[in-house]
Amino acid sequence: MSKIAVLPGDGIGPEIIDQAVRVLEAVGQRFGHKYEFAWGLVGGAAYDATGVPLPEETLELCFNSEAILFGAVGGPKWDGLPLHLRPELGALLALRKKLGLYANLRPVKVFPSLANASTLKPEVVAGLDLLVLRELTGGLYFGKKYREALPDGGTRVVDTLEYTTPEIERILRKAFDLARLRRGRVTSVDKANVLESSRYWREVAVAIGREYPDVELNHMYVDNCAMQLVKNPGQFDVLVTENMFGDILSDQASVLGGSLGMLASASLGGKIGLYEPAHGTAPELAGLNCANPIAAILSAAMLLRFSLEQGREADCIEQAVTDVLDMGYRTADLMEKGKQLVNTDEIGSRIIEQI
Amino acid sequence: MSKIAVLPGDGIGPEIIDQAVRVLEAVGQRFGHKYEFAWGLVGGAAYDATGVPLPEETLELCFNSEAILFGAVGGPKWDGLPLHLRPELGALLALRKKLGLYANLRPVKVFPSLANASTLKPEVVAGLDLLVLRELTGGLYFGKKYREALPDGGTRVVDTLEYTTPEIERILRKAFDLARLRRGRVTSVDKANVLESSRYWREVAVAIGREYPDVELNHMYVDNCAMQLVKNPGQFDVLVTENMFGDILSDQASVLGGSLGMLASASLGGKIGLYEPAHGTAPELAGLNCANPIAAILSAAMLLRFSLEQGREADCIEQAVTDVLDMGYRTADLMEKGKQLVNTDEIGSRIIEQI
Ligand SMILES: CC(C)[C@H](C(=O)O)[C@@H](O)C(=O)O
Ligand SMILES: CC(C)[C@H](C(=O)O)[C@@H](O)C(=O)O
Repeated sequence: MSKIAVLPGDGIGPEIIDQAVRVLEAVGQRFGHKYEFAWGLVGGAAYDATGVPLPEETLELCFNSEAILFGAVGGPKWDGLPLHLRPELGALLALRKKLGLYANLRPVKVFPSLANASTLKPEVVAGLDLLVLRELTGGLYFGKKYREALPDGGTRVVDTLEYTTPEIERILRKAFDLARLRRGRVTSVDKANVLESSRYWREVAVAIGREYPDVELNHMYVDNCAMQLVKNPGQFDVLVTENMFGDILSDQASVLGGSLGMLASASLGGKIGLYEPAHGTAPELAGLNCANPIAAILSAAMLLRFSLEQGREADCIEQAVTDVLDMGYRTADLMEKGKQLVNTDEIGSRIIEQI
Repeated sequence: MSKIAVLPGDGIGPEIIDQAVRVLEAVGQRFGHKYEFAWGLVGGAAYDATGVPLPEETLELCFNSEAILFGAVGGPKWDGLPLHLRPELGALLALRKKLGLYANLRPVKVFPSLANASTLKPEVVAGLDLLVLRELTGGLYFGKKYREALPDGGTRVVDTLEYTTPEIERILRKAFDLARLRRGRVTSVDKANVLESSRYWREVAVAIGREYPDVELNHMYVDNCAMQLVKNPGQFDVLVTENMFGDILSDQASVLGGSLGMLASASLGGKIGLYEPAHGTAPELAGLNCANPIAAILSAAMLLRFSLEQGREADCIEQAVTDVLDMGYRTADLMEKGKQLVNTDEIGSRIIEQI
């Protein structure tokens, strides 16, 4: 019996995670697996209940599980808290760090029936299949941050972008390993014409690249990459980059496929993987049963594939999602004329029917 | 007689700047102004000739001018140099800093006849008119950068994101001032859920916003903004953000209008403004007479408007560009079926004919 920690979090987190859990149960039934779900508090919900965004209990529950299914955390209600108590930094970033989840995989794939849901022309995004690999436990997110009073009465505020050799090496190795399973191309994204960390990143990329003569390595400046993702996203296979750049580029890439509501992610590195939709808590949609649970459902599929080595089961979920989209069911974020609008529960049920 | 420093730089810089200068001469003739052009070496070209990317002579020439028309600097030839000798940091960033050019204006406007040149659907970009205001002399670009040997034989590499109160205040004031001349909306972009500098930025934005009750202020996370620029770019009026985020988002925004080859920029703050196309040196196109000079030409128009207070003359250039595009002339970057392909010189000549 596989033990899965379920941390729904805030905003639309609980609604979409509910659907992902239902889907996992259906797959388990079909393939004869039993998943044990252990629910935990995280984020603003945890702060409200316990005074901290990542209670010890939740952390323990994670360490005692094989994988974590995570919803989303944060919201205006907790924006005023000091950074270390905020759901984002205090829970999500803390979890990533404590579990050693340095590799964040965000696959962007355009479902054929959604090619027209994108704001980009269908011919630009049709067949798109790229993977953003984001470094997840270093850089500006985790470097020293502080404010300092200046003699003139003003303030100096500082964040630090910091990386060490092994941190850069391991994420690049991962990129090359993943490229081998795909189309064999790595684009390493940096700002080497300005940042020292980027120059070093590029040197390490070249060195690691020599270990993978069968994989093609390119370097691209981050500003150019943001542009190329709009102009010609089809050129990319695996995009690998540091934490902050990866945050921006993966969100940008996600909407090429129509909606951030489709973007799943896996955070790997330690023994226990964490799986979460790339979208946020969307507080304005919370409780309305209209959010798109597909990113969460596809994250559950990644959980099966990467943490439980249930590749066939993962395929089954992905196929069910494809089928339901082909049948014309759409949540509000993806709605187009001529399609059938469904809510969060309903699209979950349709997907389960296909499993 | 107005004295303009002309620094063409590297790659396609000289070709596109030639056209911009020709256009300025034509406008001068039509309106009875005489511009005196003082040419200077900058970037890789300067390094090759003098051993430094920003010679004293060039700097002096800039300080003795009313405005600077700048091409582009950098290229693979100089990528191996230490950062302080590289064209980007050693010349462009140094100039920005020495001249106090903290405010970088990058207007993104979709010319009606180019609405179809974008990879986005015409209905998404038609009528688009936004302004990215990028802080240009602070943040990661100018903070302390270094490498440090670690006891284990590895390296730690550091860049520092640093801002002080007055740096943030002045760029935000500029944003509100500019919004007043436009549609009265400011979107301040940050990553306040993670970065301390962003949290402070947001506090300052709120405080400055109180001085401008007639302007609407919104805050947006940078990852969300990268997404919204693809999903619904029409929602923005003035986007204001720190240096690195501005670099990424302005490049991304530029291609909404079809090509980075259309994006002009003005860098203001001190007595002397600097005007440059937002694109780079495109070394692969250098010398081929096929690059798009329109960004440089529109930068020259901004020069007239902001540094010489010749608004009518600037309008005249912008109208000539619109007309030539309406007539169907296109450089390679903008080429579509049914249009007339022209090279760098030719499109310059067509624009001059309209002046
Ligand atoms: C919520 C936030 C801290 C987080 C991040 O920036 O990493 C989110 O945007 C993401 O991409 O997972
Ligand atoms: C060349 C480079 C240093 C520069 C920058 O990042 O500022 C360029 O990309 C720009 O946007 O003007």
